[in-house]
Amino acid sequence: MKNSYLAECIGTFWLVLGGCGSAVLAAAFPDVGIGLAGVSLAFGLTVLTMAFAIGHISGCHLNPAVSVGLCVGGRFPKADLIPYIVAQVIGAIIAGGVLYVIASGKAGFDLAGGFASNGYGEHSPGGYSLVAALVTEVVMTAILLFVIMGATDQRAPQGLAPIAIGLCLTLIHLISIPVTNTSVNPARSTGVAVYVGAWALAQLWLFWVAPIVGGALGALMYRGIAKE
Amino acid sequence: MKNSYLAECIGTFWLVLGGCGSAVLAAAFPDVGIGLAGVSLAFGLTVLTMAFAIGHISGCHLNPAVSVGLCVGGRFPKADLIPYIVAQVIGAIIAGGVLYVIASGKAGFDLAGGFASNGYGEHSPGGYSLVAALVTEVVMTAILLFVIMGATDQRAPQGLAPIAIGLCLTLIHLISIPVTNTSVNPARSTGVAVYVGAWALAQLWLFWVAPIVGGALGALMYRGIAKE
Amino acid sequence: MKNSYLAECIGTFWLVLGGCGSAVLAAAFPDVGIGLAGVSLAFGLTVLTMAFAIGHISGCHLNPAVSVGLCVGGRFPKADLIPYIVAQVIGAIIAGGVLYVIASGKAGFDLAGGFASNGYGEHSPGGYSLVAALVTEVVMTAILLFVIMGATDQRAPQGLAPIAIGLCLTLIHLISIPVTNTSVNPARSTGVAVYVGAWALAQLWLFWVAPIVGGALGALMYRGIAKE
Amino acid sequence: MKNSYLAECIGTFWLVLGGCGSAVLAAAFPDVGIGLAGVSLAFGLTVLTMAFAIGHISGCHLNPAVSVGLCVGGRFPKADLIPYIVAQVIGAIIAGGVLYVIASGKAGFDLAGGFASNGYGEHSPGGYSLVAALVTEVVMTAILLFVIMGATDQRAPQGLAPIAIGLCLTLIHLISIPVTNTSVNPARSTGVAVYVGAWALAQLWLFWVAPIVGGALGALMYRGIAKE
Repeated sequence: MKNSYLAECIGTFWLVLGGCGSAVLAAAFPDVGIGLAGVSLAFGLTVLTMAFAIGHISGCHLNPAVSVGLCVGGRFPKADLIPYIVAQVIGAIIAGGVLYVIASGKAGFDLAGGFASNGYGEHSPGGYSLVAALVTEVVMTAILLFVIMGATDQRAPQGLAPIAIGLCLTLIHLISIPVTNTSVNPARSTGVAVYVGAWALAQLWLFWVAPIVGGALGALMYRGIAKE
Repeated sequence: MKNSYLAECIGTFWLVLGGCGSAVLAAAFPDVGIGLAGVSLAFGLTVLTMAFAIGHISGCHLNPAVSVGLCVGGRFPKADLIPYIVAQVIGAIIAGGVLYVIASGKAGFDLAGGFASNGYGEHSPGGYSLVAALVTEVVMTAILLFVIMGATDQRAPQGLAPIAIGLCLTLIHLISIPVTNTSVNPARSTGVAVYVGAWALAQLWLFWVAPIVGGALGALMYRGIAKE
Repeated sequence: MKNSYLAECIGTFWLVLGGCGSAVLAAAFPDVGIGLAGVSLAFGLTVLTMAFAIGHISGCHLNPAVSVGLCVGGRFPKADLIPYIVAQVIGAIIAGGVLYVIASGKAGFDLAGGFASNGYGEHSPGGYSLVAALVTEVVMTAILLFVIMGATDQRAPQGLAPIAIGLCLTLIHLISIPVTNTSVNPARSTGVAVYVGAWALAQLWLFWVAPIVGGALGALMYRGIAKE
Repeated sequence: MKNSYLAECIGTFWLVLGGCGSAVLAAAFPDVGIGLAGVSLAFGLTVLTMAFAIGHISGCHLNPAVSVGLCVGGRFPKADLIPYIVAQVIGAIIAGGVLYVIASGKAGFDLAGGFASNGYGEHSPGGYSLVAALVTEVVMTAILLFVIMGATDQRAPQGLAPIAIGLCLTLIHLISIPVTNTSVNPARSTGVAVYVGAWALAQLWLFWVAPIVGGALGALMYRGIAKE
């Protein structure tokens, strides 16, 4: 197995453990909880930290929508697409398991709390409709890929893409957690949905389709305007 | 059409969707809302992310007051001024529309909540007077341009201006949301005011005049002290 | 007059307007206020933004304790010490005035709220004693200068000192606002105390003595361990 | 004595004073307290600031688990391991003392509040079990070392490791304060436990064992995938 696959697996593990972990364990801690702003920062920092740690090994996608988008954008070889996605999903599911072990170490823990799953309609944190969820996930992932393509362009400042991309994910969460709990990442959605089952799995399709469509659109959009 | 115009349109779309979106959707979410600090971070990160993504394409102004200020400061050609401003306003208005689609996907949404519009007097979030609003918008935009001119000076550390400028916008919001809901950007103000109509449009003049005057002053101030 | 003096004046203006302004206007805004964490971020970002904007013009001290410390540390010529301090204090007092104009634009504003002044004993935000205040201000300013000396050492990563120093000021505020409202900067303390008068002026001595003593100690400490 | 030992002592002093200080003094300040998110930011910024200030002197470990991990990872000579750990623990204990002087300057201060000590079971902030605490500390420290090894790899962007590593510590706190109050650092745990005594010392073993085991695992994990 290539080292890049292992790196994607570990990196996505960290994205899900860090992002969903902060949401499940710390967001609503009484009186001093980190809130949605803290969770937003956590998700972004998982990517920022891993991009510095494994960017030189695998490119640090940590997200099937990113891998597809970069493929469409001409920055990532098709041959690696499926192995990357498989590695990402495996890492995400392991993270969900570790998070379950930790979270269930507290009396009264219950998966019915949502376990940071993504959802729409009655499972949207703020009660947003399917259409709002679809628009949000498509647009947010499109801009994510647009920023990734731009910040890793040879003309952009070198070495700082991890900051740009990580904080873009923070920003996306600052906007959209109330709508869908924010996915923009099918692996992240899958990594917790498999433990929650039922509704989370039933709504999982949207968090594969919308991010991948959005990611492809964003990458094409950047390609379009970046040309001389 | 030049690619730089398209880049400004997309970038300003992101500024308004991200900044105003975080305010409308997430600021006052029950118990775990991101508050004014989260909104401040979101506005700043829209600029930080886009400056890394399109700085090399258009300079990433995303703001008519920035374009005017850089023109006055001798850093931006007059010929591009009007097209830039038009592109920025179009991007902002599209963002307002997308935000409306998302926000109205929740039962009970109402534009009467303000839709993140800027205002003074009875429409100031904290009830600040017209004079306080004018002083605030002029001074904040003046420093914004001062920082932009300085951080992009050839003698400043190279490649880090996106961080300096993005976080300057965060800082400006941390100070002044209670006064005017913070504009310092006529396009951002216009992008949501057109949906709210009535009072928001009636007060819109201040959020064109004050940022542009302030921006020009700030740029001149930097030019004055930067000379050998 | 040298441009560096003007730069220090404008920079310190921004430090006081941004830091104290966020505290006075936004910290305790109902329900969505930025809190002490937001104020901490604001103070740090005033330095971060100005260090990128004027670091190449004046070194961006914005603080008499920094100027004294760098003088003691052998990094700043004695001849410029007094003019720098004068410029910083003038900038701070102008900022206090502008903040007063803005803050008083809201009905019910009262300087008796403290206007972000520094204090100890009954004027400490958390009721901390004079001794606790002294220890806090000396130690915090010592580490601030230690970090400034280290981050601008030729062996440190180049160009990133504005981030290190700005976020050091954020950190210092995250720790110590409850104790003294955090000064570590005599100009910042003076810039608001002159408007509050009475107790704020009576306690101002501590916020000149402790930061300057601490700053000198921190600079010497770094010099001591930095030698080969 | 080598300057690097002094640097580690001062740096770890700052980590404990800044991180635990923000928790003790500011986290639960009425109405405007910084909360767990503010404490998380503070811990991370102690490392970020010191890494810029003394990275070129000692490597800025500030943590026995980091020193052991880097030793196992082949990046740090065994001969310096014990002196580094001793210096770190001394710095941490001095910091605990200074924090005690400051905190006790407020009427009603009581060490029974925990003094930011780490704990599990009934001494876990959220009531998490011993197993949850062990898993959390091992995994968090493993990823910390993985990120340290990766971000300081010669192939990673140069000069930015302080940002990656500091913000990784922030992220770790955003996730895990509710579980163990977050250690990932035996010196930090020791620096406050010695003042609290009793239960804090009785549970201290876990915060030596788990971080060191986790740190070694993380370093080996990176070594494994980083090879060509």
